[in-house]
Amino acid sequence: MIHFKAIFKVMGGLLMLLALSMMPCIAFSLYYDSGDEFPLVISTLISGIVGATLFFSFASQDQNIRKREGYLIVALSWVFMTIFGLLPYLFSGSIPNFSDAVFETISGFTTTGATILEDIESIPKGVLLWRSMTQWIGGLGIIVLTVAIFPLLGIGGIELFVAESSGPKPDKLHPRIQETAKRLWILYVGLTLLLIAIYFLLGMSFFDSVNHSLTTMATGGFSTKNDSMAHFTDPSIQYTAIFFMFLAGTNFTLIYLGLTGKFKKVWSSDEFRAYFMSVSLTVLAVAVGVYSVTDVHWEKAFRDSLFQIVSLVTTTGYVTADYTSYNSGLTIIFFMLLFTGACAGSTSGGIKFIRHLTFVKNSTLEFKRIVHPRAVIPLKINGERVNGRVITHIFTFLLVYLMIFVLGSIVMSIAGYDLLTSFGAVATSLGNVGPAIGRVGPMDNFAFFSPFAKLFLSFLMLLGRLELFTILVLFTPFFWRAN
Amino acid sequence: MIHFKAIFKVMGGLLMLLALSMMPCIAFSLYYDSGDEFPLVISTLISGIVGATLFFSFASQDQNIRKREGYLIVALSWVFMTIFGLLPYLFSGSIPNFSDAVFETISGFTTTGATILEDIESIPKGVLLWRSMTQWIGGLGIIVLTVAIFPLLGIGGIELFVAESSGPKPDKLHPRIQETAKRLWILYVGLTLLLIAIYFLLGMSFFDSVNHSLTTMATGGFSTKNDSMAHFTDPSIQYTAIFFMFLAGTNFTLIYLGLTGKFKKVWSSDEFRAYFMSVSLTVLAVAVGVYSVTDVHWEKAFRDSLFQIVSLVTTTGYVTADYTSYNSGLTIIFFMLLFTGACAGSTSGGIKFIRHLTFVKNSTLEFKRIVHPRAVIPLKINGERVNGRVITHIFTFLLVYLMIFVLGSIVMSIAGYDLLTSFGAVATSLGNVGPAIGRVGPMDNFAFFSPFAKLFLSFLMLLGRLELFTILVLFTPFFWRAN
Repeated sequence: MIHFKAIFKVMGGLLMLLALSMMPCIAFSLYYDSGDEFPLVISTLISGIVGATLFFSFASQDQNIRKREGYLIVALSWVFMTIFGLLPYLFSGSIPNFSDAVFETISGFTTTGATILEDIESIPKGVLLWRSMTQWIGGLGIIVLTVAIFPLLGIGGIELFVAESSGPKPDKLHPRIQETAKRLWILYVGLTLLLIAIYFLLGMSFFDSVNHSLTTMATGGFSTKNDSMAHFTDPSIQYTAIFFMFLAGTNFTLIYLGLTGKFKKVWSSDEFRAYFMSVSLTVLAVAVGVYSVTDVHWEKAFRDSLFQIVSLVTTTGYVTADYTSYNSGLTIIFFMLLFTGACAGSTSGGIKFIRHLTFVKNSTLEFKRIVHPRAVIPLKINGERVNGRVITHIFTFLLVYLMIFVLGSIVMSIAGYDLLTSFGAVATSLGNVGPAIGRVGPMDNFAFFSPFAKLFLSFLMLLGRLELFTILVLFTPFFWRAN
Repeated sequence: MIHFKAIFKVMGGLLMLLALSMMPCIAFSLYYDSGDEFPLVISTLISGIVGATLFFSFASQDQNIRKREGYLIVALSWVFMTIFGLLPYLFSGSIPNFSDAVFETISGFTTTGATILEDIESIPKGVLLWRSMTQWIGGLGIIVLTVAIFPLLGIGGIELFVAESSGPKPDKLHPRIQETAKRLWILYVGLTLLLIAIYFLLGMSFFDSVNHSLTTMATGGFSTKNDSMAHFTDPSIQYTAIFFMFLAGTNFTLIYLGLTGKFKKVWSSDEFRAYFMSVSLTVLAVAVGVYSVTDVHWEKAFRDSLFQIVSLVTTTGYVTADYTSYNSGLTIIFFMLLFTGACAGSTSGGIKFIRHLTFVKNSTLEFKRIVHPRAVIPLKINGERVNGRVITHIFTFLLVYLMIFVLGSIVMSIAGYDLLTSFGAVATSLGNVGPAIGRVGPMDNFAFFSPFAKLFLSFLMLLGRLELFTILVLFTPFFWRAN
């Protein structure tokens, strides 16, 4: 039996928080006199009232929240947040169409950053801030999930590598996970405020600073400008964005360790080293490529390459240059970056380096095992032996991820889109990135898709954001049959 | 220390067999008076003399053939066969260019079937038969390898599923592997002769019957006609080709069992059932799709779909219709078929159903394991428990295969080819299929590629044909460092 009362109580609490997070948007709307205060007030009231009703109708039932309720809570959180989070778009008329509003809201909460808006700058400022806010909430949510919830649910096989969860040699900052989650979200808030100040000092308007800080730290990528970060031509702003995107793609526990001066511990993380080295080498290779096929200054070639690569790897999705305009060799490299993701325990989506690392390390060992069939050759990550069950789980994740990419591309192709657009839209949705290739390149938007395609891509965003299994397990008989 | 003398002795033996298999081509050349008897005679003499020299220079050194020599023998076999197998093309002037000749020869021996010939019908008949013969030899070679050699080398993780190799519950036809290999190649020869007779009785010329029988049983796909099997418009010929392609994609041990009346045992093979059911369901779905977007008769829509699907799944690569001409939904489905392969222990290349089955079954169980984290839920195939090491090995194979596909596509893109052509050429080479999508669609050939691209694709064919690890392990330090 599933304890739906306990689930609804949690949903109620979440909706009240959602209402709370709409309030700053009302303030902005009034301050900028952007004329969208009423839709925001109504949305806030509806979310708050429904939330309070759900929350106070049911007595506290913590003891009834077990693993199965956990899955449903995670999945339904995103659904409930979407249903109420899209109200400002509908009520303000900024996005009058339901499937469009669903797409934009899920793209927000999943920190994807794909948009159906063709003229972002025409949207009133209050709603625009709400749009950025959905990403920031999504980013916060995923940090809490990864540190506190996924390990309990056994999702993704990466729980052992997110330092704060239970592991073979727990290098705990603090004994209690709840305490850790709190520290991490305070860190998240602090970095966001810091970034607002930096963007502002570098010359962004206050409004743009707030919005871009929210969507940078969430590795979301929503911008208030039609031409995204390309609007801010000042290199110092672009380098700032690069640095903070990279930071937001790092395991937040490592950022915390770094801030307390434990650099050795940061560098001893196999995943962080793989992330840092892969990004560096790719940037060098691509920058040389871009420099050789264009006639731009070397600094610009370097900056554009760096920006685009960090933006895609961290699954942010800001754009400063059209990376599909160079040649097919560079295009395919950028396309492949849709499949990397950054670090586990960050706000980035996608596959993530820890899984790639497990694959690369284990494959190398597999050759050693072929040559020495009788030797026991274990896989080690961060100096610790990884057991076979975790390896199988991670490999299953990788293959299921690729299978969903393939099946999703087939669905999009059957829905009538060309192959490159289908591949691109599915890869970028599943990886929570934003831009892609084909008709959804860095200079395009998702407006032209049919309502079916928009809802389908929204579903893929959700699948990717919640590490596939959280959602997929709900569609298996095992889940509903279990006691 | 690696015992190269033992390796060279084996190479010498192979080259003598190669010379032997060139002789029928001389006979055909003389019979049809096609004017290419001298190039063939010279090629035969060179192969035979070099082979005999190598073979008789070294004393029998069976005791020196261990695992490492085994890998080198397998890899070098294909290299030696290629170097001597391309002589008829060069000497006859049919393919005057070295990289072209390498491509065509490797495409033959790996049973791929991709061709650089723009006008196949202008090639003299003796050389044309040699071209078909390379595929037939390749098919025979791979059956012997899979049954007798790969299990000893621990390649591909599928050794347990090829009935005749050692397994947890060996359902052996005969105790000795050598005996089994002999039975299977007699079966291969017998089916080839049978198919020659059937093609001939259905109205093909004797020459075409022989050639198409050789390349059907090898799931190779070389045709003597510029428009491949579309030339033979008689449905009975096409249905015959379909049946025998499907048969050649079946584990030869199962065919043997089937011929001795043990149908229950055939049907109890999980891989065969998966192969049969997947092909059937895909054909139904695609036939409906083709029928609905074209105005052809339903039988033609069904036959074209069936033919193309069986041709791609078995990695044969014959063509009767342009499967990229319908719409993007159907194109992507055909493209994905480049990644299936048929059964282990058949002449087909690619990933093969046993690996897909392992992935699908284990992923399903993974959900069960998530819901019941404390239960031990083993994977079973053919009723037998598959141990974790085999699963890891198969998953590694799948991921390495996809990684090579990705890296290969990047290389081809950087070499200047558009994305679809790069994806298509790499997928079809690695999977030993033949036709693909983009500029290497079913109506195209590979002539336009640069020499670099041709050699690169040839390397991929070899990688795919030898189950990746056989070749890749040679590039690891573990291999050369081992004692």
